[in-house]
Amino acid sequence: MREPMDVEDLFYILGNPTRRLLLKFLSMGPHYPFQLARLLNISQKAVMDHLRVLEERGLVVKLGCERSSIGPERTYYGVNSFLMVDFSVAPSLYELKVVEAKREKSGYEAVSGTFEEIIYKLRGLAGELEKIGEELRELERRRVKALDAKQRINVQISELINLLDLDYIEKIILNLLVIKGGARLEEISEELDLRERHVERYLERLKELGLVEEQDGFYSIVS
Amino acid sequence: MREPMDVEDLFYILGNPTRRLLLKFLSMGPHYPFQLARLLNISQKAVMDHLRVLEERGLVVKLGCERSSIGPERTYYGVNSFLMVDFSVAPSLYELKVVEAKREKSGYEAVSGTFEEIIYKLRGLAGELEKIGEELRELERRRVKALDAKQRINVQISELINLLDLDYIEKIILNLLVIKGGARLEEISEELDLRERHVERYLERLKELGLVEEQDGFYSIVS
Repeated sequence: MREPMDVEDLFYILGNPTRRLLLKFLSMGPHYPFQLARLLNISQKAVMDHLRVLEERGLVVKLGCERSSIGPERTYYGVNSFLMVDFSVAPSLYELKVVEAKREKSGYEAVSGTFEEIIYKLRGLAGELEKIGEELRELERRRVKALDAKQRINVQISELINLLDLDYIEKIILNLLVIKGGARLEEISEELDLRERHVERYLERLKELGLVEEQDGFYSIVS
Repeated sequence: MREPMDVEDLFYILGNPTRRLLLKFLSMGPHYPFQLARLLNISQKAVMDHLRVLEERGLVVKLGCERSSIGPERTYYGVNSFLMVDFSVAPSLYELKVVEAKREKSGYEAVSGTFEEIIYKLRGLAGELEKIGEELRELERRRVKALDAKQRINVQISELINLLDLDYIEKIILNLLVIKGGARLEEISEELDLRERHVERYLERLKELGLVEEQDGFYSIVS
């Protein structure tokens, strides 16, 4: 039942409201620590500590320094990645999905325009955003519906498996095989955090009971 | 820039790997504390502490007690809600969405069947799951694509607004109005965690500059 280490790490980072707020401001554009400290009403030391954590995780980068004749040097920080975390939990449903991509250096053309042109472009972009917003809401409705259907099927699978005379681990292994449409020994072992030789013994018993079949090391429910 | 209190709360809860593991096991079916302690290889006291946090948050419920003649009473816990958390961050993109629904008491028919019928049903359900899995992957591809498009438009909006001779807060307010397709004073004030009378002053200036218009208290970019 292990999750990849970097997911744990990520949840730890996002679990802190100040860090989320920093990410929110930095997603709006480059900021320097003193500015962030003022915006969040916390010390610059605290800002630096959080920025270091976010930077180590690759969520935030130093974008450059700006020398000033009237004050100290300013180091600008910004968000540099595209990160998407989806987490769902319900009876018979547990899903954790992380999509992460480094952004390439902006390949955008340098923008320019007169005052009127800028306003005209902004209104056009606002219209595009509205359409995308509609699509995202539609996708979300469909996703909730699909997850709901999945959850209901998972519940039925659990209930059916509970009718069989199996012990706890055998039930979990059979459940995994049904849900995944089959799996290899190593996969089951890793998912359940059990030693392969233990899993193998359970699989043998499931095979003897006529519930599971094996082909070339791939185990699935009998066809 | 406030988030609703319960979102902070939720991230705090999910930020702990042991609690996520407990949720994972409980999503698979009812468990009692001693069983969870053994599965996670932690003390029963630690299990109880985490369960209390999850229960207070409404993610986990006591499902009932079972008296045993040979051991202490067992209290079974389970997942009782449907919870979905979507979090995305990128340059010019910050989205946090939480969907939460209490589940009704299972309205499922009591399952039954012979050994062969159970296997037959399980295989049918596995087939349905596969179709739903495909749909979910397709929805995710479309979602990543839409978020990516949204992010690129947001970047363009920021760059265009940066061309205007505005101060930091004015830029943020204008950005908000473009992205949201307009907003009321209270909404802007809450989103930016600024006093309404300050926001009003900035909006007045944006109006004077010919960037923003107001109708019945609704502010938007000039048409």
